[in-house]
Amino acid sequence: MPLSPDQLDEIAAARANPQPTLRAVAPGMEAQLYHAHQVLDHGFVRVIDYMGDDAAIVQAARVSYGAGTKHVSNDDGLIRYLMRHWHSSPFEMCEVKFHVKLPVFVARQWIRHRTANVNEYSARYSILDREFYIPEPSALAAQSAVNNQGRGAALAGEEAARVLAWLKSDAAQAYDHYEAMLSQTQPDGSPQQGLARELARMNLPANIYTQWYWKIDLHNLFHFLRLRADAHAQYEIRAYAEVMAQITAAWVPLAFRAFEDYRLDGITLSSKAIDCLKRMLKGEQVTQESSGMSKGEWREFQGVWG
Amino acid sequence: MPLSPDQLDEIAAARANPQPTLRAVAPGMEAQLYHAHQVLDHGFVRVIDYMGDDAAIVQAARVSYGAGTKHVSNDDGLIRYLMRHWHSSPFEMCEVKFHVKLPVFVARQWIRHRTANVNEYSARYSILDREFYIPEPSALAAQSAVNNQGRGAALAGEEAARVLAWLKSDAAQAYDHYEAMLSQTQPDGSPQQGLARELARMNLPANIYTQWYWKIDLHNLFHFLRLRADAHAQYEIRAYAEVMAQITAAWVPLAFRAFEDYRLDGITLSSKAIDCLKRMLKGEQVTQESSGMSKGEWREFQGVWG
Amino acid sequence: MPLSPDQLDEIAAARANPQPTLRAVAPGMEAQLYHAHQVLDHGFVRVIDYMGDDAAIVQAARVSYGAGTKHVSNDDGLIRYLMRHWHSSPFEMCEVKFHVKLPVFVARQWIRHRTANVNEYSARYSILDREFYIPEPSALAAQSAVNNQGRGAALAGEEAARVLAWLKSDAAQAYDHYEAMLSQTQPDGSPQQGLARELARMNLPANIYTQWYWKIDLHNLFHFLRLRADAHAQYEIRAYAEVMAQITAAWVPLAFRAFEDYRLDGITLSSKAIDCLKRMLKGEQVTQESSGMSKGEWREFQGVWG
Amino acid sequence: MPLSPDQLDEIAAARANPQPTLRAVAPGMEAQLYHAHQVLDHGFVRVIDYMGDDAAIVQAARVSYGAGTKHVSNDDGLIRYLMRHWHSSPFEMCEVKFHVKLPVFVARQWIRHRTANVNEYSARYSILDREFYIPEPSALAAQSAVNNQGRGAALAGEEAARVLAWLKSDAAQAYDHYEAMLSQTQPDGSPQQGLARELARMNLPANIYTQWYWKIDLHNLFHFLRLRADAHAQYEIRAYAEVMAQITAAWVPLAFRAFEDYRLDGITLSSKAIDCLKRMLKGEQVTQESSGMSKGEWREFQGVWG
Repeated sequence: MPLSPDQLDEIAAARANPQPTLRAVAPGMEAQLYHAHQVLDHGFVRVIDYMGDDAAIVQAARVSYGAGTKHVSNDDGLIRYLMRHWHSSPFEMCEVKFHVKLPVFVARQWIRHRTANVNEYSARYSILDREFYIPEPSALAAQSAVNNQGRGAALAGEEAARVLAWLKSDAAQAYDHYEAMLSQTQPDGSPQQGLARELARMNLPANIYTQWYWKIDLHNLFHFLRLRADAHAQYEIRAYAEVMAQITAAWVPLAFRAFEDYRLDGITLSSKAIDCLKRMLKGEQVTQESSGMSKGEWREFQGVWG
Repeated sequence: MPLSPDQLDEIAAARANPQPTLRAVAPGMEAQLYHAHQVLDHGFVRVIDYMGDDAAIVQAARVSYGAGTKHVSNDDGLIRYLMRHWHSSPFEMCEVKFHVKLPVFVARQWIRHRTANVNEYSARYSILDREFYIPEPSALAAQSAVNNQGRGAALAGEEAARVLAWLKSDAAQAYDHYEAMLSQTQPDGSPQQGLARELARMNLPANIYTQWYWKIDLHNLFHFLRLRADAHAQYEIRAYAEVMAQITAAWVPLAFRAFEDYRLDGITLSSKAIDCLKRMLKGEQVTQESSGMSKGEWREFQGVWG
Repeated sequence: MPLSPDQLDEIAAARANPQPTLRAVAPGMEAQLYHAHQVLDHGFVRVIDYMGDDAAIVQAARVSYGAGTKHVSNDDGLIRYLMRHWHSSPFEMCEVKFHVKLPVFVARQWIRHRTANVNEYSARYSILDREFYIPEPSALAAQSAVNNQGRGAALAGEEAARVLAWLKSDAAQAYDHYEAMLSQTQPDGSPQQGLARELARMNLPANIYTQWYWKIDLHNLFHFLRLRADAHAQYEIRAYAEVMAQITAAWVPLAFRAFEDYRLDGITLSSKAIDCLKRMLKGEQVTQESSGMSKGEWREFQGVWG
Repeated sequence: MPLSPDQLDEIAAARANPQPTLRAVAPGMEAQLYHAHQVLDHGFVRVIDYMGDDAAIVQAARVSYGAGTKHVSNDDGLIRYLMRHWHSSPFEMCEVKFHVKLPVFVARQWIRHRTANVNEYSARYSILDREFYIPEPSALAAQSAVNNQGRGAALAGEEAARVLAWLKSDAAQAYDHYEAMLSQTQPDGSPQQGLARELARMNLPANIYTQWYWKIDLHNLFHFLRLRADAHAQYEIRAYAEVMAQITAAWVPLAFRAFEDYRLDGITLSSKAIDCLKRMLKGEQVTQESSGMSKGEWREFQGVWG
């Protein structure tokens, strides 16, 4: 359970006191504010603030295109047009701020997305809590035999038990030593100096939890979600991305539907793939040899088109 | 007068309907929302949306620093500490969106700040209005004799009158031809094809007004204001920056005061300047020759320290 | 002719003096360095510097993926894999710097790409030359009847002549007045103050030429080329993008070929389009009504698949 | 010793083969290329590529300012002028690419600088080496008593020994288990599935070494160096920044000297501090009470001015 009674009280207090505003309000997002969605064993995602809604995207586009856009009869049609034609700037007019608690190895993948603002809990300044990600048995997967950066079936039996035991005991021991190094008291009660926090943290493994505030515009959030809610993303970051996708759908339903249709569930065809499909539509039987594609590319092509 | 009755009605309508929200609300900014501040002869700045307030800066910093920051007794002290030590990420947690109407030559300077989101009215897609910036007599300045990118005294007499007449008549003629080129009707009423908008716009001078939505986080807004509300900035962009500075002061009063003290009204000393000041504090008489500075640098140094 | 004898001499001098370096050298790019490719009537593009080559992309990827990538048998296969799977960071390891001379209205579109470094000639500081873009008769196009931001057939006869005459005479008059306003001498030889450069420039139309140094990494250059070498881009910016595409092909031939296949000549299919194509491959006759697409989307779909 | 004989051979091979180029060549940087500067116990920094030199900064500035800048008599004066007046774009015209090997907890600080391109060795894809940062006794510092994010004196005696023993034994055990979890063979020789790499890495502590290619422009590198070569930066990242500062001094000596004078060794004064200094120059005795500064701010002020 990631939230303490204190934290739940804080959330309830934050939600107890609506204020009037003249800004755009997204009702679906108001229902989300401050609530924590549990992710993995100790993590969460929650929305702290947002700016804009579907109408703000349309408003920004109409400044760009002036009266000309009025021929697109409705907001939905315009948003789909913008998404289809890669007009990214109107989507940048919406912004969202999340509070995320996540394991450090997930944070290290996540931070590769540079077009966001981040404030992370500082283990240089403060002391981290004793919380570590330990995978569910179903997520304790073997190395994929075909994909260097993928996983296969779940580990079974004694091997699974051995791995879980190591993950738990190594984390516990590392944290025990972390605390003992920081302490100004030795085990026998006599005083010691206590190691600097900025050094002691180096003993902690990558499955310890950290947390951050993460703020991003909607265009870049969509880019993040396309890469991280994808089936090829590591399960642990995908678990966060999927929750954030649901939140985004509640926030900007029209934009999210266009994103799903054109990006998340869409695909990109190379000129070779276009050529092959055109030949197949004419009834030709295309093989890897006649496709001009590499084996890997052909396998991916067949995965979609059979 | 930059606003038409229709526009004033739209603003009144946008302000008529407060909605409840659970987000952080900045009362000083609510009072600003949608209102247009007139700038130059036909321009304006108005706030369309914002995210966060002084407390959001503190909240983000406390995630970064954890319990450790509690020794700073209050929000103001923490915000000043962050500003003094160049901790920029907490200020990035606030965001603001402006609607700006401005001459194209000002827009060309402005867009150099790349860390913002922009949706500009498209003259490729739509037709620009007949509105041009014509300086007030007091702003019709001569070239500076000492600074290649500065101005001197206002032009006087016939010279001023001649310049104003040219600015007006060239703009009027360029716009007449712009309209005539776009038109599908010749002056004699017979039909013509009409030049593409994306081409016709090339005939328009740089004092024509354009408009855009411009969205930026508070850290980058402060950077913009430091450069553009500065005495060395061109008067026409400074006029916008000064209005935006006032709006920012209403939005995040603590952060703005820290910004004023440490950035806007602060200065940076080189190691040579530090050395000179230390010698002067000891009573030494320092000259340009003994300062190690170039003439230009010494002139700037004396401008501050006498 | 955009280049003066002086400029040609400068280029010859810059190319006369090869120096030894231990860095990666791209022979195709060395042949391009400093040479000016003419674009439009007075514009040019030339390469001033570059960093990296195809091998640098592979080298960066192999740091990312370690020994694991060795199963991809060759550089070409790895580069194609990276492009296909949207791995952008290895392409960011190459960088290029262009010197470009271009009309202001093209510069205004171009600068929307924010992920580049720019140094533009300052008309606040210096005096612009008397050079204006005047379209070739074939490029003097009518407004498109179906697309607000497109063009139709070239203007014909008197209409074309009238437009060209206006573009030329308005530019000439605006520049005459620009010079006269800047001048410290009146037409009659008596002295005057002379308007500040930062103000006088506002009288100049958007077809005047400016120039800049523009530096960008290969990933972002590809993004620029995909949008600006596209058939929907305005002809005048496309003319620059096409020259830059040729230069890029000479620089990183493997990466450019992958870019062409997967991006420039590739397309993105929505989930609806995937569904339609699958039904068509099974022999079904799909219509706009049964496609689930809007009219515009269906028109674009048919444009590719017939 | 961070470099194996194989690695030294690779460096020698890379340096053995100069090629002619027409690009700007920085002799001081050619001498640095590929050589590895040892940092900490197993880390290094080495330059892989660079673009531009001091002259490239001047060249970019002269495009910006046109003929106007010729009154600055020399390159050094112009570069100092640009640095003093915060003209950042000419410095962005130089670019450098480093190969860095560094502990993960240092990498986590480093990556906060978002304006760089990064390719990191992927522990999702590949297997990390058994190399951990273990501080020198002199760097094994106690927590600072006055600064939450600082350190005090080195630990002494048994406490130091105990900390070092824990750091070593926890790292060794975590790595032993990492290997055993990855292995497809159990200790008794019987087969097992082997945990996915993307999961096994979570057991590794933050002092394990990773490596990356890191590419950045000179303006942003200066910003990085100002923050990370500063006395307040954590010693472990400062060790890298100081080596990179030396490399930068060899690359662009004029720009580096200006950076040192105006940024690295310069300071920023608040308006309150300016006011106090002016009063002190007039002979007034200023105290914290009469300064208007907080205690912390006054302590910092006195640290400089006594």
